[in-house]
Amino acid sequence: MKVSELGEFGLIDLLAKTIGKLEDKQLLIGIGDDAAAWYGDTSIQLATTDSLIQGVHFTLGIASWEDLGWKAMASNLSDIAAMGGVPRYALVSLAIPPHTEVEDVTALYQGMIELAQQFGVAIIGGDTNSAPLVAITITILGSTRNRDKHILTRSSAQPGKQVAVTGYLGAAAAGLEMLTKQLQFDPEATALLRRAFLHPYPRLAEGQLLIDQGVKTAIDISDGLISDLNHICKASQVSSRIQVDRVPIQTIVKTKFDDRALEMALSGGEDYELLFTASTEVIDKVKRAASCPVTVIGEIVAGKTGEITLVDRNGEPFELSKVGWEHFIAR
Amino acid sequence: MKVSELGEFGLIDLLAKTIGKLEDKQLLIGIGDDAAAWYGDTSIQLATTDSLIQGVHFTLGIASWEDLGWKAMASNLSDIAAMGGVPRYALVSLAIPPHTEVEDVTALYQGMIELAQQFGVAIIGGDTNSAPLVAITITILGSTRNRDKHILTRSSAQPGKQVAVTGYLGAAAAGLEMLTKQLQFDPEATALLRRAFLHPYPRLAEGQLLIDQGVKTAIDISDGLISDLNHICKASQVSSRIQVDRVPIQTIVKTKFDDRALEMALSGGEDYELLFTASTEVIDKVKRAASCPVTVIGEIVAGKTGEITLVDRNGEPFELSKVGWEHFIAR
Repeated sequence: MKVSELGEFGLIDLLAKTIGKLEDKQLLIGIGDDAAAWYGDTSIQLATTDSLIQGVHFTLGIASWEDLGWKAMASNLSDIAAMGGVPRYALVSLAIPPHTEVEDVTALYQGMIELAQQFGVAIIGGDTNSAPLVAITITILGSTRNRDKHILTRSSAQPGKQVAVTGYLGAAAAGLEMLTKQLQFDPEATALLRRAFLHPYPRLAEGQLLIDQGVKTAIDISDGLISDLNHICKASQVSSRIQVDRVPIQTIVKTKFDDRALEMALSGGEDYELLFTASTEVIDKVKRAASCPVTVIGEIVAGKTGEITLVDRNGEPFELSKVGWEHFIAR
Repeated sequence: MKVSELGEFGLIDLLAKTIGKLEDKQLLIGIGDDAAAWYGDTSIQLATTDSLIQGVHFTLGIASWEDLGWKAMASNLSDIAAMGGVPRYALVSLAIPPHTEVEDVTALYQGMIELAQQFGVAIIGGDTNSAPLVAITITILGSTRNRDKHILTRSSAQPGKQVAVTGYLGAAAAGLEMLTKQLQFDPEATALLRRAFLHPYPRLAEGQLLIDQGVKTAIDISDGLISDLNHICKASQVSSRIQVDRVPIQTIVKTKFDDRALEMALSGGEDYELLFTASTEVIDKVKRAASCPVTVIGEIVAGKTGEITLVDRNGEPFELSKVGWEHFIAR
């Protein structure tokens, strides 16, 4: 069987089986969450790694080198945010064609550093390699603030809890489409959509706030709302019902993309908002404490593992063809 | 200026400058050594990352998928060995073409796991991405055995100390040449050279032994003896004199490659032996305690920073054209 037939998530499941159950009492979370987690002496330690690959995740005509650096750092920091952690150190493995201008490489690092510094994260190591294409792999090491605190996992969702999301969705997918199709919008819309796709801001403060308010379950929206909710539901062995008209779509996406806005919000991905589940009381506390919008969009239900049911405002089934963005599977 | 004109080591120096001096009292070693190091609560923490890229570090016709997994893990574990550390966890970021057979990917992981398990290292996370070529980036997290112990750095070499190396050199380069040129040797030589290039064994026990015996300065031989000694000399702002006839060349390399054997030992790279500097007394203790050969090949001298002088058995200058293997610079 080809990797393309198995799909990214099928491959990850298979690799987790290949690695097998680890006999390690210090290890809290291995493969299958946003970051790995283990007990340190005074806090839970976190580590995550993620790559940006030319031609797969970006094209150089659309993104500047600074943008690339920022985005590579952001997508990794977002995984630490989704655990409720505090990032600390970064390692950068860079593959780069030999004909690349040196100033482009320094611009790439400046993009990484600009974002990293905002969270006190230092780049402390890495390696560089000649290659036919650009690939940026970042590993982030972090921790919780102290050992008593828990972490946010994908596997702790329970029937009866509400499903909520930070911020607004769809702008990253809309930004990608604007840039690839060279769509012309007014300067304000152009700037917002461009920033959403190229300069996402990881929700680290919000991840820590979720921990403080007692939330147990979260993921960051990188693959797309439905796909990432499916990760939670599969890991927690539950299902979920989402009322699509409650999904907070970025206004400019609705204005500019009309009837495709919902699809962008549900399955576009790369918005790097946090998707979490909690009781109504906990979510109300989160809403009061958060400086960003927090919207309840549905609930966790018992039933067939991992199934996501979309309903309209009348509770009637809502059909959507495109569910998330999965590597390897040709569409 | 192009990256190819600056070269890998020039690029690393520039990126270290771009990142700048880090104001972090916990950080012991940032960019520029085999691994990053910082103070944990009860030991020094270590992290290193290294990539194997198709067409750059390997071709699939020569290496099996298991070999690739083993070698990617070995080159990373070797960096922990060069700090005198104990490896613990691994994160694997894999880029892979969609048409790859799933069983090849599991074979790749089995190769990684086979070696990792020998050192109690668990793969606890990573990511997978579709890409036009295979790239394996591994991050290893480790530590020293306790906080009191020091680590092995590149920057602690002092004039008057001896330069020594574990094991025998040249077999990895000879193995690569045998495989790429399809040279036919007897089964024993074929097996040895193949193993040297594809299944290197990281010197973790020896790295820890160097610490125990009081060695301060070490590097693993990945770029090549001269190139890696140059890293030590530049980081320590010293120079070195190597007596080439003392360099321990793998016997089979001398037999099969005759007058090219010395070049393979001096600049072939990827032998993953440890190169270290210490006093004669310390090296004698290391020799008694080690289960592998340890050979003194020269000394650290004051003088022009980073210069490596090669001398013959009469102390006369010895000329060598090819010094180490540097990415980016076309040869």
